[in-house]
Amino acid sequence: MAGLRIKALAFDVFGTVVDWRNSIAEEAEALLGADGHAVDGQAFALAWRARYQPSMEEVRAGRRPFVKLDILHRENLLEVLQDFRIEGVSASIVDDLTRAWHRLAPWPDVVDGLVRLKRGHIIAPLSNGNVALLVNLAKHGGLPWDVILGAEVAQAYKPDPEAYRRAAALLDLDPGECLMVAAHNDDLLAAAATGMKTAFVARPDEYGPGQSKDLAAEHDVDVIAGSFGDLADQLGA
Amino acid sequence: MAGLRIKALAFDVFGTVVDWRNSIAEEAEALLGADGHAVDGQAFALAWRARYQPSMEEVRAGRRPFVKLDILHRENLLEVLQDFRIEGVSASIVDDLTRAWHRLAPWPDVVDGLVRLKRGHIIAPLSNGNVALLVNLAKHGGLPWDVILGAEVAQAYKPDPEAYRRAAALLDLDPGECLMVAAHNDDLLAAAATGMKTAFVARPDEYGPGQSKDLAAEHDVDVIAGSFGDLADQLGA
Repeated sequence: MAGLRIKALAFDVFGTVVDWRNSIAEEAEALLGADGHAVDGQAFALAWRARYQPSMEEVRAGRRPFVKLDILHRENLLEVLQDFRIEGVSASIVDDLTRAWHRLAPWPDVVDGLVRLKRGHIIAPLSNGNVALLVNLAKHGGLPWDVILGAEVAQAYKPDPEAYRRAAALLDLDPGECLMVAAHNDDLLAAAATGMKTAFVARPDEYGPGQSKDLAAEHDVDVIAGSFGDLADQLGA
Repeated sequence: MAGLRIKALAFDVFGTVVDWRNSIAEEAEALLGADGHAVDGQAFALAWRARYQPSMEEVRAGRRPFVKLDILHRENLLEVLQDFRIEGVSASIVDDLTRAWHRLAPWPDVVDGLVRLKRGHIIAPLSNGNVALLVNLAKHGGLPWDVILGAEVAQAYKPDPEAYRRAAALLDLDPGECLMVAAHNDDLLAAAATGMKTAFVARPDEYGPGQSKDLAAEHDVDVIAGSFGDLADQLGA
């Protein structure tokens, strides 16, 4: 892997670095429960996440100016509450639950792996999360990023090529000096199209039992790793 | 100081966090010397830095679109070489010397202070340096930033108010929840005008013996600290 000559590692975050499903399920049950609304947290988390791509597609397609993910998350939450026939939730609980996306737990292998990878590389999230969300996630989970990159800085949502290109440009690197790390094939395919190198790390439990996609790399990636520790091993970190 | 309710600390970098003068002087003497050009490194560093504000003013005044500081540093270097009547320096040495601004040494109190301040606050550079420069400085000097903010992200050079406003907005904070830390009165005055809180840390040796400005806070700042350790003490960090 030394032949890759990677200077920076850019990480997808939701699903790759953090387990959004269980964190959101717990927070939804706790926050809505305390307000008197019993809810199936797992179903709620999946329904909320299902609105993620369609809401960003409005921006990617140019039908809507760029707005940060916190705003999309809040709008989507209001729709999910409606779908679940949960009424009368106060604005402060809606705000707090929206901020649950700032408090997601990393997968168990992440922090140790990032600490190792940081020694010889620049490490950064390249996420559709906004800067405040990513900073707060890092404080919450101990993620030792060197710099926060992603959609808000690029004003473009992945897989828009501008999101990847802007990240490399801000680091003053050629895309080929950057390794995009993700648990999602479409993210890696888009990164590769801009010239980035790619690493697939499977997260077969991201969507819970019965997950049917992204169980393995489907394209020609540069690295396949079972965990962030394995990725560090393969990069000699 | 607990009454300040500060969530993020934003730091000026050149002069406040790093000693640009001695680092640039050493690199200029070494790199130009190896190329057969004897130079007074201290005079060279001061002359290079003297072109810093005028070159950014072209951008601030709207006479030139935003370009990152690496580009201004390189242009200014070519002019300083001419002023010093140093001819025939190769492009690769010009590039390497320009990158000396990515390898500046922090003042001795900085790293320990930042480690303490990071525990209870978001810490970020809010510098006119570009993102790659600031990331490389952090890797070089062990600066544990949570996020890189500043001119390139805002597409505006301090003291343009947009540089400060954009930093607070990216953190999803009110300006009043941010403490601007600088060794320069004009920086703090501009930050305060956007609503930020301010901390003055004197760096009386920034320009060397005979420094006549910024020896003390000249305006009504919220904190005056003798070092980053003293700042951490005063914030209870």
